[in-house]
Amino acid sequence: MAVDFTGVVPELSLAVDRSAGVPLGQQVQETLRAAIRAGRLRSGERLPSTRQLADQLGVSRGLVVSAYEQLLAEGYVVAEVGSGTRVAEGLAADRDTDPPDLPAEPPPDPLPVARIDFGYGVPDLRAFPTRDWLWALGDALKTLPTADLGDGSAEGDDHLRAVLAGYHRRVRAGCADPADTIVVGGFRQGLTFVLGALAAHGIDRIGLEDPGPREHDHIARRAGLRVSAVPVDAEGVRVDDLRATGARAVLLTPAHQCPTGAVLGPTRRQQLVEWAHEVDGVILEDDYDAEFRYDRQPVGSLQGLSPDRVVALGSVSKTLAPALRIGWVFTPRRFRAGILTEKSLSCRGVPQLDQVALARLVETGRFDRHLRKVRESYRRRRDALVEAVAEHLPGATITGLDAGHHVLLRLPAGVDEAGVVSHARAEGVAVRGLGDYRVTADDAAREPLPPALVIGFGNVTTRQIRDGVAVLGRWSVGHVDKA
Amino acid sequence: MAVDFTGVVPELSLAVDRSAGVPLGQQVQETLRAAIRAGRLRSGERLPSTRQLADQLGVSRGLVVSAYEQLLAEGYVVAEVGSGTRVAEGLAADRDTDPPDLPAEPPPDPLPVARIDFGYGVPDLRAFPTRDWLWALGDALKTLPTADLGDGSAEGDDHLRAVLAGYHRRVRAGCADPADTIVVGGFRQGLTFVLGALAAHGIDRIGLEDPGPREHDHIARRAGLRVSAVPVDAEGVRVDDLRATGARAVLLTPAHQCPTGAVLGPTRRQQLVEWAHEVDGVILEDDYDAEFRYDRQPVGSLQGLSPDRVVALGSVSKTLAPALRIGWVFTPRRFRAGILTEKSLSCRGVPQLDQVALARLVETGRFDRHLRKVRESYRRRRDALVEAVAEHLPGATITGLDAGHHVLLRLPAGVDEAGVVSHARAEGVAVRGLGDYRVTADDAAREPLPPALVIGFGNVTTRQIRDGVAVLGRWSVGHVDKA
Repeated sequence: MAVDFTGVVPELSLAVDRSAGVPLGQQVQETLRAAIRAGRLRSGERLPSTRQLADQLGVSRGLVVSAYEQLLAEGYVVAEVGSGTRVAEGLAADRDTDPPDLPAEPPPDPLPVARIDFGYGVPDLRAFPTRDWLWALGDALKTLPTADLGDGSAEGDDHLRAVLAGYHRRVRAGCADPADTIVVGGFRQGLTFVLGALAAHGIDRIGLEDPGPREHDHIARRAGLRVSAVPVDAEGVRVDDLRATGARAVLLTPAHQCPTGAVLGPTRRQQLVEWAHEVDGVILEDDYDAEFRYDRQPVGSLQGLSPDRVVALGSVSKTLAPALRIGWVFTPRRFRAGILTEKSLSCRGVPQLDQVALARLVETGRFDRHLRKVRESYRRRRDALVEAVAEHLPGATITGLDAGHHVLLRLPAGVDEAGVVSHARAEGVAVRGLGDYRVTADDAAREPLPPALVIGFGNVTTRQIRDGVAVLGRWSVGHVDKA
Repeated sequence: MAVDFTGVVPELSLAVDRSAGVPLGQQVQETLRAAIRAGRLRSGERLPSTRQLADQLGVSRGLVVSAYEQLLAEGYVVAEVGSGTRVAEGLAADRDTDPPDLPAEPPPDPLPVARIDFGYGVPDLRAFPTRDWLWALGDALKTLPTADLGDGSAEGDDHLRAVLAGYHRRVRAGCADPADTIVVGGFRQGLTFVLGALAAHGIDRIGLEDPGPREHDHIARRAGLRVSAVPVDAEGVRVDDLRATGARAVLLTPAHQCPTGAVLGPTRRQQLVEWAHEVDGVILEDDYDAEFRYDRQPVGSLQGLSPDRVVALGSVSKTLAPALRIGWVFTPRRFRAGILTEKSLSCRGVPQLDQVALARLVETGRFDRHLRKVRESYRRRRDALVEAVAEHLPGATITGLDAGHHVLLRLPAGVDEAGVVSHARAEGVAVRGLGDYRVTADDAAREPLPPALVIGFGNVTTRQIRDGVAVLGRWSVGHVDKA
């Protein structure tokens, strides 16, 4: 055992730094691991004896022994009687068959950072009730039984489910039973679970409102469903077209169609219920911003009209903030077990503290108080938008003003949608064209969408609205297609 | 229009309660909706005139008019010129073709409420650092930029990802890059995303440790993979058996096998890395309770040994509390996009506040302080368990003592596992037999598992441990199979 390692050790730059504040033993281990990973110590190569390394580094031999033992336990080195400690065979750095590690892809196309963001669906984040939420979290932590810090039930917190069902009855004129209420991590997660349950029930095709959020196509296909695009007009989804698709499920935004802003009309509501009975089908109701209605009481949830044919999905993303990631599903009983199976196979649910905090926020009236406050502020922004459009885009028309915090702005005749979007972005105004909401369906060619912009006004000030619309107007006025 | 509705109205029990604290208009609406839903008002039936109903209820006519308008907008009633307001056709209550709404199934078999719960995998919930967590949430809310209350990125919070990668390097001797770190809602959700990404990469079979958590079979199948059971011995998973399955993926618990408690041996670690290169495969490392090692420094993460072949998954479920629902994935770059696709198709991620709070907890040292504290308490419980077993179950052997907060208790020869489990439950002691961890695989018959109990000691006091083991011992001693 008189091999001389003095040549090896300096090459490895093994060294410890007494001023680093990191324990010396950890430093020795880390240096050796790094040398092996990087291939500076290769398979089969001997490490210096513990005595030699201890001497060189000026540390105790025990410290080096224990570092070697650690690396042995972790599989970096092997120790054989009579041949010292060697680097293990077969570690990654020796391979030239390693799969290529591709560079990380760029993230999917978000709106660029803009000084004015008319992005769809974001509520007023500055109005988030920070103090109330923190109070509710603190209250939840104080009152939560210790046992509730465990995994919890698949359905979600019992008390929150009762509070949500009560809220849905009271504010949304729904007909929800706490037993059929399931807490989820936001609308998208709820949709995934529901679609999975429908597929398990033999439903193989879903109609999606067109225009509508494009990602729903992908989510539905991922759940194993085929997708049909169903056109939308001023009364909402066209039920005859839905019937023609042969789908037995449809995803709707009855309170405020996304993105056209249409409120589903009374006759359509009745037709939909009839259709659902006729085909033994189900309506998924995305009840996403119904709390914000400006001219009258919000139109009640479709779920209330036909609780056995409607699965209603809601969340706090439009009322409080998307970052909270809490939503719920009110389901007819026959889908309940399927939804819970989907949920339990893919996660263990929603953070318990947040569930209890949301229940406290609602039942103490703080949630309603927040809604009243932001509803007023959205109304002011909506009015500012209407005024600014009248001033800067006199040929444009606005639909979807009754509710929510986005509208559809139909561009004046001859104005190119893509042109105004790209011009606006160049000037720091982020906005989406209606074309971004074209659903990719299995079906044949459909009517073209009119040139229009989807304007979210939830998270912009009235001043930003005026300035942003002025930018849109300047370009549009100068670029009317004379054809 | 002189139809007399006086007969209808009392039958409907339409009434308002002025002392109820609910606005009268809302009461009128609710009563009418309920009557329609329950079939007391049937399709085509006329409602009383607004004047009549207003008179009867003693409310203003305007209030009734607006209630009727509301029900009209929601699709409950139709109004035709000359024929008044009628209940809409086709609502649910008229149907006898309604699908049967089955009673809710009983929840899946949980352990019954027990005075002593040896359930697997629950940490000391009483030790949850309530004050620190609330501090961290408050600090997060104070410092969070408003924009971060939006949907956030698919990867998770950038700062938390850097903190987690640093923690993995520092505490788990791992080799994680923040760019390849993805925040998820706990281990199970992370596993679902990773399995989906592997399936998309053409990996069609996964090996699962047997014994192991049975639900992983279902999760893997749901993701589209076939499942092979791979036996485990005192050194961990048997790599030759893994190779024989033809699987190109395996899910392992190297730090503390679940449920046998075996620590994956050094040779096995090297063999696994070789196997992964040989088959162009991938190892999923469930790094679930590695922070709790009692005799020495925890054995480093397998991910550190072969970062290009290991996806490591971790969570705070064993260190803080399952209820927080935060976990992470460290992935080789080639699976990153696939995992993010799976994540973005099924949810929009993890609550942002919790992410920032966890980062604050770790980077301020509060997380480490908590770990030190509970590690000591787990050590005391482990020692109490060893003593109690020596006293009450002298023929039993314990494995898996080195780490974590559960052990495997092999019963003395001739003691029936199912018998002791059911006897213990009858006496209020919840415990699982090893048989509950038999993986349901596609493969042929396997060696039987020895009679044994999985004893979790994370969430029981030393006194409960002594009492619970005494219960186990009393029955076992009296029921040795003399055969």
